[in-house]
Amino acid sequence: MYYIGIDLGGTNIAVGIVNENAEIILKGSTPTGRERAFSEIMADMGALCEKLIADANIKKEEVGAIGIGVPGSFDKETVSVLYCSNIPSFSNVSVGDELKKSFPDAKIYIENDANAAAFGESVAGAAKGGKDVVAITLGTGVGGGIIIGGKIYSGVNNASGELGHTVISIDGAPCNCGRKGCFEAYASVTALIRETKEILPEYPESIMHEMIEKDGKISGKTAFSAMKQGDIAGKKVVDQYIKYIGVGVVNIINTFQPEKIVIGGGISKEGETILAPLREFVEKEEYTRNSKGVKRCEIVAAELGNDAGIIGAAMLFKQDL
Amino acid sequence: MYYIGIDLGGTNIAVGIVNENAEIILKGSTPTGRERAFSEIMADMGALCEKLIADANIKKEEVGAIGIGVPGSFDKETVSVLYCSNIPSFSNVSVGDELKKSFPDAKIYIENDANAAAFGESVAGAAKGGKDVVAITLGTGVGGGIIIGGKIYSGVNNASGELGHTVISIDGAPCNCGRKGCFEAYASVTALIRETKEILPEYPESIMHEMIEKDGKISGKTAFSAMKQGDIAGKKVVDQYIKYIGVGVVNIINTFQPEKIVIGGGISKEGETILAPLREFVEKEEYTRNSKGVKRCEIVAAELGNDAGIIGAAMLFKQDL
Repeated sequence: MYYIGIDLGGTNIAVGIVNENAEIILKGSTPTGRERAFSEIMADMGALCEKLIADANIKKEEVGAIGIGVPGSFDKETVSVLYCSNIPSFSNVSVGDELKKSFPDAKIYIENDANAAAFGESVAGAAKGGKDVVAITLGTGVGGGIIIGGKIYSGVNNASGELGHTVISIDGAPCNCGRKGCFEAYASVTALIRETKEILPEYPESIMHEMIEKDGKISGKTAFSAMKQGDIAGKKVVDQYIKYIGVGVVNIINTFQPEKIVIGGGISKEGETILAPLREFVEKEEYTRNSKGVKRCEIVAAELGNDAGIIGAAMLFKQDL
Repeated sequence: MYYIGIDLGGTNIAVGIVNENAEIILKGSTPTGRERAFSEIMADMGALCEKLIADANIKKEEVGAIGIGVPGSFDKETVSVLYCSNIPSFSNVSVGDELKKSFPDAKIYIENDANAAAFGESVAGAAKGGKDVVAITLGTGVGGGIIIGGKIYSGVNNASGELGHTVISIDGAPCNCGRKGCFEAYASVTALIRETKEILPEYPESIMHEMIEKDGKISGKTAFSAMKQGDIAGKKVVDQYIKYIGVGVVNIINTFQPEKIVIGGGISKEGETILAPLREFVEKEEYTRNSKGVKRCEIVAAELGNDAGIIGAAMLFKQDL
């Protein structure tokens, strides 16, 4: 049997055919055209699914389940999107009914995209086989996904896991969500860029000035790259940034004591440059640090990248088993 | 059938006989004598259990299960206490084996005391019948208990739910746990007393000065009582304190989106004086505040008081059903 995973984004719709071992055997994508009508977007999504199974030489009857990860609010029972700020026409629409037209025999699942990605990492990625896992994504924002007992934890309204929107600094830096001092306002790449910018006037001799002039902008890599070249200001930014991540990660550990915390997003490509000092910070701060013989949460980098959302969506049916 | 719930504290051991409706039909307590040997403490605990069932005219065979809530780390499988800072002799000892001597037919369960109390509130108290519930206790410290899918969520090491030890203010007020800026360091009664003390020099005309002189101390009630008499400084302390609770509560909501958050501890007796402005704060700050038609977490006061731990411990067997 095969499974289709769909990652609906504001820019692209990514689709993958996934086998029983949670491996993508074929994938493709098509532009979302996010301002278009629901029916048009769904037609392209359906056509891409049909094309991929044809290319993979799979019969429709061999597709056991389809899962879709959406960047908005949704209803699991009716497999509907309720609201999606990035794709206006996806408002109170049954994605499930549309997909059923092409795949009448497949069971259709819907989930939040960040949760689907977290589930993907827990099924086939950095936390493979994990029962209690928390995933955070450090990107433009900070996303979160919570896996408990091997299933996505959704809360009363499918809106749980907004770990980026927990305050770590009362009355602190303004966050896009309207609160002040959120984890996202300190640990996202957007925040890292702000933190880099803020320190520059204090360090006129920093090599970051040159780097920025050359690149034409400050990026999430600027401070890391400068630090690796021995730049003091770069190191100061990175140290502070890792502390911010650390505070949020310890909060998650003291709350969940998960088996693993999976850290994803572009910045996780820095690997041990971030993870080693982060683990050191956590060991000093976590509540159980003085408890002997107690299992500790492992901190690992995400492994599946953008495929996590596709694999997680395709594997959603596993939660029913 | 009947069930025995035991709440092991550093000062007293509280025991209750609980019926199938999760009601305490008889309870009693005995001093822990926390510096004594394990066998002596267990002998008193066993004797109290035996006395209560005799007084209630219940046969041993009618006791289906016994649950014990402990203020320390433990192992569920062996029903052992690993470490208990308040009761030194409870170190790597099998509480289950001891209780089995008196009650060979009963199934014995062990749990963290705060988790047992949270479970009690979810089985028979303020969140009766709730599946996804978070309980926080605002007392000397800030405790937490997480119920997911109708069961206590324990994490990988039975140490989850330390919600008082999540940082809400980086580099903020020192916390007993060694971190700085924890929720506990702002929202416990201990913190409220500190916050009251800190404001006094700024308000020499506050009636709190007289109150403190009369009572001989600042308590968690000082600012609340002053506010109710129109005192500006008292109101300022209470407003700020409720904001601190609010920040932590919104963090919990954005993380869990539980059906209910149950607020317990001495301060919860202030009831709507705290809850009404707290709900107002949460409505303005929670992540889903702008999502239409989305279920919201309810904030309620704990109902069972000190009985929550007894009832929760007695009902632990329900998690196996």
